[in-house]
Amino acid sequence: MDYDKIIMGIDPGTNVMGYGILGVNGKTLTPIILGAIELHKLGDHYLRLARIYERVLGLVEQYLPDELAIEAPFYGKNVQSMLKLGRAQGVAMAAALARDIPIFEYAPLKVKQVVTGNGGASKEQVATMLCHILKLQRDKLPTLLDATDALAVALTHYYENQKPTSGGGAKNWEQFLKQHPERLAKR
Amino acid sequence: MDYDKIIMGIDPGTNVMGYGILGVNGKTLTPIILGAIELHKLGDHYLRLARIYERVLGLVEQYLPDELAIEAPFYGKNVQSMLKLGRAQGVAMAAALARDIPIFEYAPLKVKQVVTGNGGASKEQVATMLCHILKLQRDKLPTLLDATDALAVALTHYYENQKPTSGGGAKNWEQFLKQHPERLAKR
Repeated sequence: MDYDKIIMGIDPGTNVMGYGILGVNGKTLTPIILGAIELHKLGDHYLRLARIYERVLGLVEQYLPDELAIEAPFYGKNVQSMLKLGRAQGVAMAAALARDIPIFEYAPLKVKQVVTGNGGASKEQVATMLCHILKLQRDKLPTLLDATDALAVALTHYYENQKPTSGGGAKNWEQFLKQHPERLAKR
Repeated sequence: MDYDKIIMGIDPGTNVMGYGILGVNGKTLTPIILGAIELHKLGDHYLRLARIYERVLGLVEQYLPDELAIEAPFYGKNVQSMLKLGRAQGVAMAAALARDIPIFEYAPLKVKQVVTGNGGASKEQVATMLCHILKLQRDKLPTLLDATDALAVALTHYYENQKPTSGGGAKNWEQFLKQHPERLAKR
């Protein structure tokens, strides 16, 4: 199927990397694939980084995304964990940069805000709302919430790039806003 | 010229990235190339990361190093700078991982200790000692000390992988140790 635009969402962590690819056709949004790579099974730090790079490059080559949206926390517990997170982000970004794909970053709070209307939403709430918006069956999705998180980043990128004058995003989202107008202000 | 081993040293920063490639033939060490890429001229964060990736991949493809030695500080001022540094390291590592080149990390203090015998040495002192060991003319080297720093990481990797029973590293280094035996203990 041809899409106007394909957005790849990545939630790169040092233990699990989530990915989700969203096809955009006009106002129709199609989740093409989503999944999570369990990196903690790979002992070595470099093996983990290599796996992230290979997998992201593989997804880029298979699904030819136009844009990469990445979930990027800007603050962490300590400098050690931030260095590791930066490396995980770096290798994922390199796979996109290798194919000249523009990168966009969204803080976790932003993703939660845009998808659920609540910056303090849980990963479970993000997944539930995502299923509602994209008409996905929750029980058919990967159990690891990193996968839905990644697709949520792709969705966030889509919404953030919709012009306010163009009538907004997907039909479901518009309907949701009509039902919950108080959530718009939080975007 | 054929070498037994080619070691690529990288000193990846967010403002300047140094690189230095060392050819090893028995106990003869040859600096093949060294230089520094001024990233601060590129405004955009992603342009900088893309430049690091392209340049490291280009060096990998041109000089076919067997191993990558990377200067990697493990502590930084704050989580923000460590995240950025991690990304710079990540894209540089991705270029090596893409070609299955093993990666070795050395803390700046280790590099200074191994090359000069003093973990608190200045970049200038590292450069001076490097010129002494590799018979380089200081005034013909790149002015940016990130270049000599990178070559120093490659040299550190070479020394660290010399078996103590094999008689040590380069002739100059052995001679230097004979003249300054007190420095050996600090390695």
